[in-house]
Amino acid sequence: MAKIEWKPGNMLYPLPVVMISCGTKPETHNIITVSWTGTINTDPPMVSISIRKERHSFKLIKEAGEFVINLTTKELAKAADWCGVKSGRDFDKFKEMKLTAAPASKIKTPLIAESPVNIECKITQVIELGTHHMFLAKVVAVNVEERFLDKQTNKFDLRQTDPITYLHGSYYTLGENLGRFGFSVRKKKGKRKDAEKEI
Amino acid sequence: MAKIEWKPGNMLYPLPVVMISCGTKPETHNIITVSWTGTINTDPPMVSISIRKERHSFKLIKEAGEFVINLTTKELAKAADWCGVKSGRDFDKFKEMKLTAAPASKIKTPLIAESPVNIECKITQVIELGTHHMFLAKVVAVNVEERFLDKQTNKFDLRQTDPITYLHGSYYTLGENLGRFGFSVRKKKGKRKDAEKEI
Repeated sequence: MAKIEWKPGNMLYPLPVVMISCGTKPETHNIITVSWTGTINTDPPMVSISIRKERHSFKLIKEAGEFVINLTTKELAKAADWCGVKSGRDFDKFKEMKLTAAPASKIKTPLIAESPVNIECKITQVIELGTHHMFLAKVVAVNVEERFLDKQTNKFDLRQTDPITYLHGSYYTLGENLGRFGFSVRKKKGKRKDAEKEI
Repeated sequence: MAKIEWKPGNMLYPLPVVMISCGTKPETHNIITVSWTGTINTDPPMVSISIRKERHSFKLIKEAGEFVINLTTKELAKAADWCGVKSGRDFDKFKEMKLTAAPASKIKTPLIAESPVNIECKITQVIELGTHHMFLAKVVAVNVEERFLDKQTNKFDLRQTDPITYLHGSYYTLGENLGRFGFSVRKKKGKRKDAEKEI
């Protein structure tokens, strides 16, 4: 277990890789892919995204005070990568990637219809950190793709969407299921719910 | 692509699952596992973690103004789960999970020696959000396990550590590598570095 000390850097991985849709009018609709995102509070449900102020989406998101987090999948990996590299100043990203802007439930920003989970967010705070501004936001609605709902249990099976993750510059699918939260202490059925309270 | 609207909730996945080491004296050393964490800024490198104020680690981290993010792996999955369920009020988690508290480079909080990457963090801001407080922090040092450094390229191969991720209540290993950032536009060698600047 010999350790080597490095200079400070970003080594927290794997991270989510999500497509943020923004723009409240059809002519301003845009998509930016980000990995600097996370859940920051359980109740009320809150998330954060961090974006460079030079990005085209930055102003759109800041001025609207809202955005949508669209989860990505193996099928969406190429579109997600492309939307992270290209700029909305030069392209209509929905059109170029053949993605569909669908109406959100609670906000004016469109969802990406092809994404299996769309998280509608309203910004509560903006913090300037350095290269990036962090947007703190409340989740105001979640839209899920009906075909991933198990008809028998009525549970949404996120694993079936074939989600992807971002590890130190590369995109990966998920592999083996190692167990649910609380598996290390679970003795019998019914224990899981107690354990889940603690996260 | 039929969508169902849900009430607001936490559906941003997959997320990291990391062991936070804390406590600046041997008798207070503790570990808490969190998934509400993320990278929030590139330069200076910054991260956030969110913790319920009822947790034993909360006071330790807040008072010390520092913590260490220890990345988890398939080998560490059981210990990570256990440290997320149990409380440091009741157990010496390092001892119970047979983990080693090793000295950090720049702060007083110990690293978990068995973790392949230890990220030393100093808190810059604490924000009360609801159930959780969010700690914003600067990365002050990164320690990596020597055996995952490729001797030929001198690059750290995070994939070789067998990292795990957290998806809607379950732990997963990673699967297939779908490509590096910029793969959707890459035409020739040398393009990658340009693309990487844009994230």
